[in-house]
Amino acid sequence: MIPEGDNRHRHVCNTCNTIHYQNPRIITGTLPIHEDKVLLCKRAIEPRYGLWTLPAGFMENGETTEQGASRETWEEARANIALSGLYTLFNLPQINQVYFFYRGHLTDLDFGPGPESLEVALFEEHQIPWEQLAFPVITRTLQHYFSDRKHDHYPVRTEDIIRPPRAR
Amino acid sequence: MIPEGDNRHRHVCNTCNTIHYQNPRIITGTLPIHEDKVLLCKRAIEPRYGLWTLPAGFMENGETTEQGASRETWEEARANIALSGLYTLFNLPQINQVYFFYRGHLTDLDFGPGPESLEVALFEEHQIPWEQLAFPVITRTLQHYFSDRKHDHYPVRTEDIIRPPRAR
Ligand SMILES: [Zn+2]
Ligand SMILES: [Zn+2]
Repeated sequence: MIPEGDNRHRHVCNTCNTIHYQNPRIITGTLPIHEDKVLLCKRAIEPRYGLWTLPAGFMENGETTEQGASRETWEEARANIALSGLYTLFNLPQINQVYFFYRGHLTDLDFGPGPESLEVALFEEHQIPWEQLAFPVITRTLQHYFSDRKHDHYPVRTEDIIRPPRAR
Repeated sequence: MIPEGDNRHRHVCNTCNTIHYQNPRIITGTLPIHEDKVLLCKRAIEPRYGLWTLPAGFMENGETTEQGASRETWEEARANIALSGLYTLFNLPQINQVYFFYRGHLTDLDFGPGPESLEVALFEEHQIPWEQLAFPVITRTLQHYFSDRKHDHYPVRTEDIIRPPRAR
């Protein structure tokens, strides 16, 4: 039953005729830092199998964006991290996603691939595989970081990533 | 059918046995400013009927957090606003919500109550009805604003709002 006065977008399930609300989802992750290096994970899953990413995944019920970011960092990179604040925030309206990345420092070097990663490694700036990054949000977060690092000042960076319409 | 390797939280619908993913939802809104005043809306809906709030509501698919904030400002306060950046961000893990508030200036004074508001008005700092604000996120956003305004500097403020466990 549709509640009175309810004018939100909703999805009425074909199978059961019940309302299931559909809203954008949050993906939360980290930019893990050790000395002058950043940690990246090589994806063991589709999409973008074999490309490099920062640890990130869907925020779950009952957790904060920070907790989700730390959890994903453990799940994908078996890494422990001390967060130092929200850093980048992206809207991807065409796929109904909002990304959060937190800066943080590795608290030890006992990292390694979780089930969704083929490999986990530390990269200096000149070693970053720019042509093999999995998603634009990863490229933008790393670009912001290496630029902001010159001044050691990391304000929250917010951006919309709009895909150009497909050529016909 | 549960996809292979899927270890996310999910809700299997009692009625149809289909998986409906459940994730935290984003509520997006604005702190509308005109000269030394802020705009508040008196709620015409439950919860917190009759209490004062900032315009905000659930982000919808296909829009950015900024677009959702502007849309809600129009829907609830019939106000046009020029946004000047993300200002406060709250995690409410116990109710699976993440709140965004954008600062912005009214572009004209043709505002008035939408269907979810009883009344819309501008308040100077000493006129704010602190005891009749609808939600802690509203109180905190206004407190941050009047404090940050002294220095005319508005960094992004992030906070977790954790409710104390209920007394038994
Ligand atoms: Zn269903
Ligand atoms: Zn269902």
